[in-house]
Amino acid sequence: MTSPASHPASGTLSYEQAGVNYDLIDPLKVAAQRAAAATGAHLAHHGFSEVAASRGESAYVVDVGPFYIASIVECLGSKALVADEMNKLTGKSYYDSIAQDTIAMAINDLITVGATPLVVQAYWAAGGSDWFSDAQRAKALVDGWKRACDTCKVAWGGGETPALAGIVADGRIDLAASCTGIINPRERLSVGDKLGAGDAIVLLASSGIHANGLSLARKLVERLPNGYLTEVEPGVSYGEALLAPTVLYSPVTEALYAAGVKPHYCANITGHGWRKLLRHPATLTYRIHSVPSVTPVLKFMQEHAKQDDKEAYSTLNMGAGFALFVRAEDAQKTVVVAKAQGIDAIVAGVVEAGPKKLIVEPLGIEFGDDALQLR
Amino acid sequence: MTSPASHPASGTLSYEQAGVNYDLIDPLKVAAQRAAAATGAHLAHHGFSEVAASRGESAYVVDVGPFYIASIVECLGSKALVADEMNKLTGKSYYDSIAQDTIAMAINDLITVGATPLVVQAYWAAGGSDWFSDAQRAKALVDGWKRACDTCKVAWGGGETPALAGIVADGRIDLAASCTGIINPRERLSVGDKLGAGDAIVLLASSGIHANGLSLARKLVERLPNGYLTEVEPGVSYGEALLAPTVLYSPVTEALYAAGVKPHYCANITGHGWRKLLRHPATLTYRIHSVPSVTPVLKFMQEHAKQDDKEAYSTLNMGAGFALFVRAEDAQKTVVVAKAQGIDAIVAGVVEAGPKKLIVEPLGIEFGDDALQLR
Repeated sequence: MTSPASHPASGTLSYEQAGVNYDLIDPLKVAAQRAAAATGAHLAHHGFSEVAASRGESAYVVDVGPFYIASIVECLGSKALVADEMNKLTGKSYYDSIAQDTIAMAINDLITVGATPLVVQAYWAAGGSDWFSDAQRAKALVDGWKRACDTCKVAWGGGETPALAGIVADGRIDLAASCTGIINPRERLSVGDKLGAGDAIVLLASSGIHANGLSLARKLVERLPNGYLTEVEPGVSYGEALLAPTVLYSPVTEALYAAGVKPHYCANITGHGWRKLLRHPATLTYRIHSVPSVTPVLKFMQEHAKQDDKEAYSTLNMGAGFALFVRAEDAQKTVVVAKAQGIDAIVAGVVEAGPKKLIVEPLGIEFGDDALQLR
Repeated sequence: MTSPASHPASGTLSYEQAGVNYDLIDPLKVAAQRAAAATGAHLAHHGFSEVAASRGESAYVVDVGPFYIASIVECLGSKALVADEMNKLTGKSYYDSIAQDTIAMAINDLITVGATPLVVQAYWAAGGSDWFSDAQRAKALVDGWKRACDTCKVAWGGGETPALAGIVADGRIDLAASCTGIINPRERLSVGDKLGAGDAIVLLASSGIHANGLSLARKLVERLPNGYLTEVEPGVSYGEALLAPTVLYSPVTEALYAAGVKPHYCANITGHGWRKLLRHPATLTYRIHSVPSVTPVLKFMQEHAKQDDKEAYSTLNMGAGFALFVRAEDAQKTVVVAKAQGIDAIVAGVVEAGPKKLIVEPLGIEFGDDALQLR
């Protein structure tokens, strides 16, 4: 890892320079994953079993007999810091969008295994009781949270609203969501055993940066003449554009099932950008022949961070928020179903026999087997 | 509410003075609860329904047909700050205990509705990547988390380990756990409809402060000559005593079901201390004829905070971590089953027809209907 100080201010800005050091987190992650894996056997005590293939996937799945239960907890990350800065500049509260982002982090992961999200729990840990005294902001958070639940047809079960002075920074809030769903009928289980050569790759449009890459986005603002108010396109500031809420994809996965399409695999494109297309453990080549148009704020970020395509696509979603791997004959139908839910989609590529590799043909870039280490 | 400044340093120290202002949190809570309640109807879209009586209880319950699913997310609170201070003083890491506390917050709530906990997810949000570089501390957290999962026979499904510089305070960690369980068979559902006059109240022993009342405990340390190293009893410091891990009660509730005892109601005694015995919405009188022995650290806190019994029992668990309301004829059996799991228990009282009231006869104190507003 290179330290930020060794680069001139105008140089390339990578994710590590923006302050997230995965080298320090990963040893703990590995230890935690090993310890966690050893606990799966406890389920036998209750007459159940884990779906071992879900370890390393985006949600954990338990076989309870008539169906499967999937569960997850997900963090918003640092996007709320952008909302706080923009609030200072515009007086508006963006916490309705932030609420949707938080729920999307959980829901969009949960659905990758074929689950229907049923219950969301809210985790809103504030830096002190006074966070909640801003009535406009608190109302926006509640309203946005409810609206996202309505969109996904999930029940908001409850949650926690602790005031954690000394742990959460003063004036800030740490937002997360947990989600429980079921995979019903059982044949909806999607943990990758069906993925194979010949499958089509359908990419669903993102709305912008979603909630990954925000450390980079916040670092970049230091380079902009008008900071968050710098225009990304006429009439749209960088801050506003960043705060476009993350797309909720569960209406698409539910509509697909209703239309008879059962994805062979799904990948939520979050941290690590398009490298997430390499998530499946199998040795397969993913050949992309069409890329979606890049959301203006992401194009803007790429330019100002002076990233080449390889770096940009390995960090940001670049217009694609969710990938569906479906039978070739279901590809067009998948696009039609997504569009009917108001979410743009394209048939972007194909899965081929071959070495583990992602080839983005229109851009002339490739990512190999070593590009993503999640397990 | 009275401000801390209006009391001399040697005066009575209440929970509000210790920095938690429930008046500011509650309006948001009420708005969130209303919005959440309106989302329960979404479950019909999936062919399911919520158990409406679980709204306002400690875990949210969905009827999925063959059984019920319960879910929850819970925060540790500020106990990790004590571990951090004690680490400076002793060089030891207490994060194995802290891990158990965090899981206990979720599990002990989930089991109140009759659920068997199946999956725990970890939410470990650090103030920066470097939190994870203290290998001893990170290992303690992982080991303690796994051990608590082993005790409760739950699968550790996974979780989130974000580095949230600027949101979580530098050098700190925000810990929470989500938990999903099932209520199986359906007759184990316990949302209070069976509670009635004549039921016995069995109290299960706590190990100390557990993870509620820590703001008060931390404030109190300013009054102690040797701070956290002040002895609570010979050879045991205040800090060590506070860090006794919260008892995990699910082995007791599982053993009770195996022994044929189905509680009519359960209350996890957390914030609001014994006022949690008034949690059930019915108009009933709870008459306590025997109180458990008070854990030394809680006795110590009561003395140094100069609290009378009414204030102490309305804030701290005072030796009782969990309440089981059972048929009178099951009371002794409940005690025997708990003790067989290594957890002390007493038949403490009885439920009577009468106004909503908790009468603690041995101490001559009462709490009325207005003592607890959770719904």
